Amino acid sequence: MAMEIERKFRVVSDAWRAQVNRSLAMRQGYLAGEGGKASVRVRLEGEDAKLNIKAAVVGAARAEYEYDIPAAQAREMLDNLCIGRLEKTRHYIEIDGLTWEVDEFINDNAGLVVAEIELDSIDQPFERPAWLGRELTEDRRYYNHHLALHPWRTWPDEDRH
Amino acid sequence: MAMEIERKFRVVSDAWRAQVNRSLAMRQGYLAGEGGKASVRVRLEGEDAKLNIKAAVVGAARAEYEYDIPAAQAREMLDNLCIGRLEKTRHYIEIDGLTWEVDEFINDNAGLVVAEIELDSIDQPFERPAWLGRELTEDRRYYNHHLALHPWRTWPDEDRH
Repeated sequence: MAMEIERKFRVVSDAWRAQVNRSLAMRQGYLAGEGGKASVRVRLEGEDAKLNIKAAVVGAARAEYEYDIPAAQAREMLDNLCIGRLEKTRHYIEIDGLTWEVDEFINDNAGLVVAEIELDSIDQPFERPAWLGRELTEDRRYYNHHLALHPWRTWPDEDRH
Repeated sequence: MAMEIERKFRVVSDAWRAQVNRSLAMRQGYLAGEGGKASVRVRLEGEDAKLNIKAAVVGAARAEYEYDIPAAQAREMLDNLCIGRLEKTRHYIEIDGLTWEVDEFINDNAGLVVAEIELDSIDQPFERPAWLGRELTEDRRYYNHHLALHPWRTWPDEDRH
């Protein structure tokens, strides 16, 4: 089974911007509500489009399946069939041989910036950049699926820390 | 957009069995509950596997997207990520240049047999075989998605007509 092992963190300063290698605009939506055993995501990444299925378990290791699909079909699904959508710019940053993905959300999730790192094992050590804040890996509220259905800007002030 | 135009009927006798051209065992499951704008289906058809996304509207014409996926991945998703499953044998019958698909359900839906015909337009005429019963096209309860989550054998007797 394809497993994705990923840890996620808040980002606490803009210092990461100087380290960006490349950036990609992403628009994504979900074909399933919360409550199932999987999320089903449609994503436009620049000119590419992907259909992604990920186990709806909380934590760093999640079964994941991903398929390339025609961008025109992804646009139709985003416009007509998705029940939650979000837009973000993904910035890629290479540090110490590993790739950080810094997601800068826009529109209803504007103000939120998170950083993810994909690992080979859950306990793999990695260098923590100075701009890294608290870990969100176990916090389901910061799943993109949840953010698409419950945008960050609609959260109570005290939860947006 | 890919549109599927399909009409569905109950089957009222076994007379269709003499007309079968070929049959295929199918096992399918759903990655999303009801209530969204789309159903997301994983299906094993013999040795092939497909991921299918269909608009959750009632009626004969529904937007549909289908992708081939590796059978091993489909099996994993069926075992681990689907929230409703069903098994059936699909029998193909050619009549008057059109293909009828007669679905003979097994396990929790055993006893139910339905026939579907795919058309080029909603009002396309077609020959009605003698074994065709009442039309189910507008009856959401007979959607495979619904049957997977609410098997026919669990329905009240008076609804299983």
